[in-house]
Amino acid sequence: MNRRDFIKAMGWTAAAGLVGPAVGAGAISEKKPNFVIIYADDLGYGDLSCFGHPTLKTPHLDRMAAEGAKLTQFYSAASVCTPSRAALLTGRLPIRSGMCSDKRAVLFPDSGGGLPKSEVTIAEMLKPQGYASGCFGKWHLGHLPAFLPTSNGFDTYFGIPYSNDMDRIKDAPKDANTKPEVEYFNVPLMRDEEIIERPADQYTITRRYTQEALKFITKNKNRPFFVYLAHNMPHIPLFSNKEFRGSSLRGLYGDVVEEVDWSVGQILDALRKQGVAENTLVLFSSDNGPWLVYKQHGGSAGPLRDGKGSTWEGGMREPAIAWWPGTIHAGSLLTDTASTLDVFPTLAELAGAVMPEDRIYDGYSLVPLLTGKGPGKRDIMVYYRGTQLRALRKGPWKIHLFTKTEYMGQKIQKHDPPLLFHVEIDPGEQYEVGNQHPEIMADLLEEVKKHQATVKPRPSQLEIPLAKGS
Amino acid sequence: MNRRDFIKAMGWTAAAGLVGPAVGAGAISEKKPNFVIIYADDLGYGDLSCFGHPTLKTPHLDRMAAEGAKLTQFYSAASVCTPSRAALLTGRLPIRSGMCSDKRAVLFPDSGGGLPKSEVTIAEMLKPQGYASGCFGKWHLGHLPAFLPTSNGFDTYFGIPYSNDMDRIKDAPKDANTKPEVEYFNVPLMRDEEIIERPADQYTITRRYTQEALKFITKNKNRPFFVYLAHNMPHIPLFSNKEFRGSSLRGLYGDVVEEVDWSVGQILDALRKQGVAENTLVLFSSDNGPWLVYKQHGGSAGPLRDGKGSTWEGGMREPAIAWWPGTIHAGSLLTDTASTLDVFPTLAELAGAVMPEDRIYDGYSLVPLLTGKGPGKRDIMVYYRGTQLRALRKGPWKIHLFTKTEYMGQKIQKHDPPLLFHVEIDPGEQYEVGNQHPEIMADLLEEVKKHQATVKPRPSQLEIPLAKGS
Repeated sequence: MNRRDFIKAMGWTAAAGLVGPAVGAGAISEKKPNFVIIYADDLGYGDLSCFGHPTLKTPHLDRMAAEGAKLTQFYSAASVCTPSRAALLTGRLPIRSGMCSDKRAVLFPDSGGGLPKSEVTIAEMLKPQGYASGCFGKWHLGHLPAFLPTSNGFDTYFGIPYSNDMDRIKDAPKDANTKPEVEYFNVPLMRDEEIIERPADQYTITRRYTQEALKFITKNKNRPFFVYLAHNMPHIPLFSNKEFRGSSLRGLYGDVVEEVDWSVGQILDALRKQGVAENTLVLFSSDNGPWLVYKQHGGSAGPLRDGKGSTWEGGMREPAIAWWPGTIHAGSLLTDTASTLDVFPTLAELAGAVMPEDRIYDGYSLVPLLTGKGPGKRDIMVYYRGTQLRALRKGPWKIHLFTKTEYMGQKIQKHDPPLLFHVEIDPGEQYEVGNQHPEIMADLLEEVKKHQATVKPRPSQLEIPLAKGS
Repeated sequence: MNRRDFIKAMGWTAAAGLVGPAVGAGAISEKKPNFVIIYADDLGYGDLSCFGHPTLKTPHLDRMAAEGAKLTQFYSAASVCTPSRAALLTGRLPIRSGMCSDKRAVLFPDSGGGLPKSEVTIAEMLKPQGYASGCFGKWHLGHLPAFLPTSNGFDTYFGIPYSNDMDRIKDAPKDANTKPEVEYFNVPLMRDEEIIERPADQYTITRRYTQEALKFITKNKNRPFFVYLAHNMPHIPLFSNKEFRGSSLRGLYGDVVEEVDWSVGQILDALRKQGVAENTLVLFSSDNGPWLVYKQHGGSAGPLRDGKGSTWEGGMREPAIAWWPGTIHAGSLLTDTASTLDVFPTLAELAGAVMPEDRIYDGYSLVPLLTGKGPGKRDIMVYYRGTQLRALRKGPWKIHLFTKTEYMGQKIQKHDPPLLFHVEIDPGEQYEVGNQHPEIMADLLEEVKKHQATVKPRPSQLEIPLAKGS
């Protein structure tokens, strides 16, 4: 059974009437809401002014938070790109879809794998509900035609298929990542399945993703739509359009993030102008923490420990903002634990889709939390690196079975007994308290076992080489 | 010439008409504005939700920032209590007033010194302008009668004369600071010059300071007033009123800060209810960074390095919010460098007072910055510990001549050549760049010399012992 047949078989037809009661009477219109996910790349927890950065100015995201909700304990499902994006779009841990590996952190230009056909993306889930879906930006779930956005439920795609530091040319200087020129990175820019520019002009890429998303919104304003705007910035190499170059107190990294902030402002303005703001849920977050080894060229996790690649909080806890005028209470500060894993079931509920019952989902609808009708449903968060479960959080407690402090280039360390932190009292994971709480340690170890019993690893897609000639 | 005569001699009479032109036509009413300074104790840069704390909820301060201005590069003038407060109230570096020492960080119950008579406090500067001034909370500028607030221009005082961890009883357990009982700390609570309670009931102290300040505002609403509300929380030992106990996700420290936040909300509400909000400038900040050695009982400097006692940014850069409905543009994000040293000249300008010309001031009026009429005037910030100049910032650059990382219990280290950081690109002072910028290093060393030429140290007030019988 291919995926399209599966969708039909699951009976994912419009379930009108489900939306209203599920989210509280009158709060949400009968018309199916639009969804916009804006995803940044390697943006740290501390990189927005509304998340405490002293010199990086993000007025549009700050306004988005002031008009909507700031989520302060929001997690991506992985600390690197490919698995994080797979989890966002499928609502499932990468270990369940084969979208992680202990040998290769992410997909590369020489990879032959991608998101398995059997996985259902948000775009595929929304299609039977009548949604138009557009993907703009970095994909990184497989660059062969069978894996591209247009093979995964999106009607259109405009972007780069993997990271912007890949396809580096042989002659590039050693410091190409931090003193970049467009020519050093032979990354293709694609429209649907075609390469339209190579190397992609990264100076203008944030602007062009934005323009393409705006066109899509205008075109589809009279039907429900889903926009997945996945900026490839501020992943190194850093490029910004000329209006932003040299404009940020925070330097080049700041220029680039401030352009992403501009992009967010453009999208929200367009939703207002098109008259669909009150029927559109917009989510902003990042795929993983800041790439600290690039120093000033990487971001900041703010008060959190470590960054990209790490299962310390700085690797996976991301700035997150949700916006839906009239439905999300302006200025909400949501400290409940939540995750990109929760996005799929949230959008499914709002769109009136029924969740597939033949597979394990790792998320919970955020609708009660976002609409102020109830608390967040997530009690447990798991922290994987590759296929290895390194840490687990339950309530405010987190145990580390393994740690590896990435920015210090540490080797992996096994902890027996595990390390225990109270990450609400001690978000920076500075004060280990295992000795004082043996019963909590035991409870969390039990949760580790329970979780692991649900996991049947699949062959990794990230280890499949590109077939000759493809 | 005593201080009162001095004030007369300086001709500090009401200079009506000066206020209007000085701050831009029409922005500020002809009526002299009221001033409220709310000062927290040992609160870290990262301890408010609007400065990025994930679990500490400060809705009143967040609202204050949303209605006013958040200052993200705002410095206290010292990294410990006594000198920091001396600088705030006099507008002068503690090295100029003798309110610092290399032997004793602050004043203690066995100290006989205090703020010298020759210094002019904000309250003294405002008195000839017709202001009523009230001091509520921790003083810490001398507890002998000659040094108390009522001898320094304040009409009334209600608070503790030094830190809440002092006068510790002999029988107190070793961990009294982190498992506190009121009885362990025999700190007096004073009204004007009288001790009215000993030990002060610290559980209710934040609430009582607030109530006293509210009464003062109500009583003085028809004349210009100055409220200095200097909470002694969240300095350890931590105590909160019962409504707040156990209420914060951030634990006891969070309870205490959330009560301070409640206090801010009470003050702003009262200003609105009394109809004086649009004629009142409210400033919120903290005396120095978080006391990190107390771990979970200390605060967080967020993305900044080190805390209390340090000349790394975490020791002296503080969260700061300015609020003045109708005059300060709502939601301003002010990244210009500013300091508590700037408060005296700011209030002088707004009150129509002329700055004394017989002494060096270390600040610049913040009026243009706060009212949106111009940029901040501060280019240089100096970082002292005791009488030692350890670091200097000019523009975005900072050199460290000496460092001592307090939370690690480090010894003082001399740096020759100094360390150089770009604290706007690298607010966490992680990436030393001296080698790359010899010309900037030379320029900052020149500024060190220029500054030091202006300094004539005075005998330290902090080293004067209590005379027998006093």
